[in-house]
Amino acid sequence: MIGILGGGQLARMTIQAAIALGVEIAIYARKPDSPAGRLTQHEIIGEGWQDEGALSQLAALVDRVTLENEFVDAAVLDRLAAMGAPVYPTGRTLGIIQDKLRQKDRLHAVGIPVPEYARVDTPGDISSAGLGWPVVLKAREGGYDGYGNATVHDETEATLALRKLDGRKLLAEAWVPFERELAVMVVRGHTGEISTYPVVETVQKDHICHVVRAPAPVSQAVADRATQIAVEAVEAVEGVGVFGVELFLLPDETILYNEMAPRPHNSGHYTIEGAVTSQFENHLRAVLGWPLGSTALRAPAVVMVNILGARQGEADMAGIRDALAVGEAHVHLYGKRTVRPGRKMGHVTALAGTLEEAEQVARTAADRVML
Amino acid sequence: MIGILGGGQLARMTIQAAIALGVEIAIYARKPDSPAGRLTQHEIIGEGWQDEGALSQLAALVDRVTLENEFVDAAVLDRLAAMGAPVYPTGRTLGIIQDKLRQKDRLHAVGIPVPEYARVDTPGDISSAGLGWPVVLKAREGGYDGYGNATVHDETEATLALRKLDGRKLLAEAWVPFERELAVMVVRGHTGEISTYPVVETVQKDHICHVVRAPAPVSQAVADRATQIAVEAVEAVEGVGVFGVELFLLPDETILYNEMAPRPHNSGHYTIEGAVTSQFENHLRAVLGWPLGSTALRAPAVVMVNILGARQGEADMAGIRDALAVGEAHVHLYGKRTVRPGRKMGHVTALAGTLEEAEQVARTAADRVML
Repeated sequence: MIGILGGGQLARMTIQAAIALGVEIAIYARKPDSPAGRLTQHEIIGEGWQDEGALSQLAALVDRVTLENEFVDAAVLDRLAAMGAPVYPTGRTLGIIQDKLRQKDRLHAVGIPVPEYARVDTPGDISSAGLGWPVVLKAREGGYDGYGNATVHDETEATLALRKLDGRKLLAEAWVPFERELAVMVVRGHTGEISTYPVVETVQKDHICHVVRAPAPVSQAVADRATQIAVEAVEAVEGVGVFGVELFLLPDETILYNEMAPRPHNSGHYTIEGAVTSQFENHLRAVLGWPLGSTALRAPAVVMVNILGARQGEADMAGIRDALAVGEAHVHLYGKRTVRPGRKMGHVTALAGTLEEAEQVARTAADRVML
Repeated sequence: MIGILGGGQLARMTIQAAIALGVEIAIYARKPDSPAGRLTQHEIIGEGWQDEGALSQLAALVDRVTLENEFVDAAVLDRLAAMGAPVYPTGRTLGIIQDKLRQKDRLHAVGIPVPEYARVDTPGDISSAGLGWPVVLKAREGGYDGYGNATVHDETEATLALRKLDGRKLLAEAWVPFERELAVMVVRGHTGEISTYPVVETVQKDHICHVVRAPAPVSQAVADRATQIAVEAVEAVEGVGVFGVELFLLPDETILYNEMAPRPHNSGHYTIEGAVTSQFENHLRAVLGWPLGSTALRAPAVVMVNILGARQGEADMAGIRDALAVGEAHVHLYGKRTVRPGRKMGHVTALAGTLEEAEQVARTAADRVML
């Protein structure tokens, strides 16, 4: 049995893949009735990451542990490993990734092109770093989907932003005038074997992923370079499992590393129907030390569109009926009981001959789901 | 929430499809820890089909009920419906199907070509029916995977077989010198809308399905006729949900109806990866009254090979590691704790340009799974 720290949609879709492999899953979550917890009789409810009793219960039950978000105290992973339930990715990998400054330092050290960045303790640090304006301020730890980020255009805005992010350790990055955002899902096994999914384009709105287009409409040279950077990044942190690596593509075709997620990633959801082996199945294969599966696309074009909350309240997904009337659309709902603006409630994937066709189908269906 | 009567692999793969649709599943099974029961926190253990308490518990929990095998007392389905949990397929449909004599009578009445058959109460009935020899004796109720069937070549064998099948109501069928066995998955909605999957060839050994080839290597005329018979058969029993219809193809290209299963069927497992919408998802869509999804193939050729038990004992599926090393193979394990000869433990599906290629991949992987 494999334990997953977290019970959200990533754990849920991992369970879906685990069913085929005959692998049982235990979910460790803070609350019962999570999207993934509902799909196993081994649902362990822990009071955060310091609940020794619950962690021991998990370690006793499972052979290996993995995670669905990177905001776990890396020391907890080491404790689980010491209790006989090794975690992949490891505490060492997570320790590097979850501090964005340490992550950038590590990747910069091995020659991966990153935007100019600087550690920020006081407002003065921003100007003296000479990054120009605007500058992107990022909480070094705990940020996701834009939470913990702020783009500031001058010292006044910087001072306000620092006040808002008060008390958090920060990193400043030069603003990158990118043309597109790209992402690459990389899967790496215990013995270092690597497989990569096609380079995709991601379309973000307010720092939240809206659309993923596979393959990205870029030249072969750009795709090759993006893949190379993604692989080097995952190798630099000695990752085991699937990793989502986000990149910036500049107008002159320069590629800069943006960030990575040490787990299945929104930019890889399209692989469930769009690739021979899904990111979730390959993640399990890597964690288990099993051979990795083919990452080839199953159609010339695959597009995924997120279903995002637009209001606050009880979720009503009854529109799925109309969404399913859209031929060729693959609708995925995450089973969340409540909705709030921007919350990821599901996604739709479509395969087609061209990105335009696929996107049209996926958008039409996605727009119909939420009531 | 939807309830499923039964907790085997068909219910398990239905849960897999239900996850994407955001549909919750309750499993009604005789024993805990079934392949499907493990995947929900709503596992109701009932003492057979007469356990009123457990059935009421199920009816209180779910909006609709479906089933994964046809050996449910049709009256139970009517009772559930009366308790506010309508069952699809209905008790009426099931009542016709589960008695093979009544089924044949019904289909014969609407003009569907069936092998010559006769009701058998005494050994003399067989000879007097004038079916020729050999004759296939079938228990009218409760037979599956060859259990409850016997092919007899003369009166002596018939007498022995009748003794063996003692006390069971029987049907005799003329032996059909078929060239191939074909099957068609038909999905029918509440308002009679029908969708059909491609005609497949099934290869049976000892009455157990070994291999399914999609599409069947037959002429368009044969495929059309097979599809027509399958649709008429499902309409004749007013089926709702997915139905597996098995057919005989004779050397002169005559097609005869063999039997049908009122549920997802082994000959449709290939649709999980091989079709745009799997039989399991379409079954749920039909049961829920939602629009049916595309049944188109996703590759020129798709082959499924069953993983069958060859010994008695505790299951050891550790060979999955070697099976997964076969590129392009989609391995499915059912999570059964014990194995016995001929027991369905999983299956492998492969997509390719030709049936030969796909079959080679699927067979190679399937052969490696079981230890």
